Amino acid sequence: MHVVVNAAMSADGKLSTREREPIAISGGTDFDRVDGLRADSDAVMVGVGTVLADDPSLTVDDPDRIAARRGRGKSPQPARVVADSRARTPPDARVLDDEAETYLLVGERTASEKVERLDRAGATVIATGQARVDLPAGLDALESRGIDRLMVEGGGELIFSLFDAGLVDELSVFVGPMVIGGRDAPTLADGDGFLEEFPDLELIGVERMDGGVLLQWDVA
Amino acid sequence: MHVVVNAAMSADGKLSTREREPIAISGGTDFDRVDGLRADSDAVMVGVGTVLADDPSLTVDDPDRIAARRGRGKSPQPARVVADSRARTPPDARVLDDEAETYLLVGERTASEKVERLDRAGATVIATGQARVDLPAGLDALESRGIDRLMVEGGGELIFSLFDAGLVDELSVFVGPMVIGGRDAPTLADGDGFLEEFPDLELIGVERMDGGVLLQWDVA
Ligand SMILES: NC(=O)c1ccc[n+]([C@@H]2O[C@H](COP(=O)([O-])OP(=O)(O)OC[C@H]3O[C@@H](n4cnc5c(N)ncnc54)[C@H](OP(=O)(O)O)[C@@H]3O)[C@@H](O)[C@H]2O)c1
Ligand SMILES: NC(=O)c1ccc[n+]([C@@H]2O[C@H](COP(=O)([O-])OP(=O)(O)OC[C@H]3O[C@@H](n4cnc5c(N)ncnc54)[C@H](OP(=O)(O)O)[C@@H]3O)[C@@H](O)[C@H]2O)c1
Repeated sequence: MHVVVNAAMSADGKLSTREREPIAISGGTDFDRVDGLRADSDAVMVGVGTVLADDPSLTVDDPDRIAARRGRGKSPQPARVVADSRARTPPDARVLDDEAETYLLVGERTASEKVERLDRAGATVIATGQARVDLPAGLDALESRGIDRLMVEGGGELIFSLFDAGLVDELSVFVGPMVIGGRDAPTLADGDGFLEEFPDLELIGVERMDGGVLLQWDVA
Repeated sequence: MHVVVNAAMSADGKLSTREREPIAISGGTDFDRVDGLRADSDAVMVGVGTVLADDPSLTVDDPDRIAARRGRGKSPQPARVVADSRARTPPDARVLDDEAETYLLVGERTASEKVERLDRAGATVIATGQARVDLPAGLDALESRGIDRLMVEGGGELIFSLFDAGLVDELSVFVGPMVIGGRDAPTLADGDGFLEEFPDLELIGVERMDGGVLLQWDVA
């Protein structure tokens, strides 16, 4: 499986404010690029923190891109994946609407009534891992369902865990022309953080857009 | 006074690990650029957190740059400034050595024996602000002593406060080819963070170096 992480951060590395309100960091050019990246993916993944904070739909907007997917014999929309150990995704979350297929990765110990509620809301539930979703096993399960190209849209907790498990192939970051600040604001990679053996990146692209710059990194 | 903030961060916006150990984010090209920036400044400022974590000397290395300063009728080294409300700078810190003049900005309520100890260690102590150093007043005091061009080398707590007070004119950030991660790792701008009225930046330079990229922003 090929895993691309994509996010927009402020010039100081924040995905949002300390109150986790969604804010516009990028602009129209970057939104369109993200839409194209979604259209090129088999599935788009987020952590439940992002579902709770932003309630994103994670769908492709551009009708031409949707038509092109159909033309390639694909589903009109990429699938959606939420890492949600305790099945906290609200049954009325946008990621559970009828626009696309949705996989919920939950922990094996999650209460069955919660899982059933999300199953009834239309999600395909995959249980793996104990306290938290086991990401390598979860991604393997997705791959066995035909997901070869996975785009990850955040947030920082999920992104850190994916790096920690060595699962990230590419990182695309739009760096926006603003300072958010805040020692408690979410950053591009949160979690416990590395103390040594930092993942090495190789800079493969630098492009100015929307007043900021898109940095594209390969993970070594 | 013209204030330039300069720092090196990982691709995910961290200045260091959660253990605040100094780590090499940039390389030789960026170090040389920083040396040049120091040589062009009347003073180089850090917060006491950086003194305690890294014990930097903040001096210019290159003998040619030192000679050029002399040639311009300047002191061989730019002055050093530490924002240190409670006078926690250790008397044997490198910033207090004889290489350059050092200003310690402390709070007005700081115990006089602490201030005297640092005064004996060779620092010029400027008291301003109550619980914390009043940065606008502190920078005014420095300006009245002939410091017109101030370079700020971090860390994230000081940088946030300077943005919050509207004191930053330029921001230079080297973005390095590594992921550090960590919700508790220091970032380029910590503090409480902004919730609205985010400082707007204008991208004035993008340059690849040392496997990463130098982003230069003007503060609008
Ligand atoms: N600017 C952007 O591009 C962008 C993109 C996305 C999000 N955001 C912002 O980021 C913030 C949300 O980020 P976040 O970091 O709090 O949330 P997140 O990464 O979206 O979700 C984190 C949650 O995922 C669950 N999870 C399940 N398995 C995991 C695993 N193995 N490792 C890590 N997490 C796992 C955990 O909850 P359980 O333990 O309950 O499972 C965890 O708390 C919001 O403010 C949002 O606006 C910004
Ligand atoms: N990569 C880089 O370029 C780079 C550069 C510098 C530092 N660093 C890293 O950054 C970390 C240190 O950063 P930090 O954020 O902890 O420390 P910092 O910004 O260097 O210093 C913060 C301290 O300055 C004092 N201060 C005085 N007046 C202040 C004011 N008005 N606003 C804010 N602070 C004021 C405060 O202590 P009092 O309240 O006691 O005065 C505060 O705790 C270290 O890990 C270091 O390695 C990295």
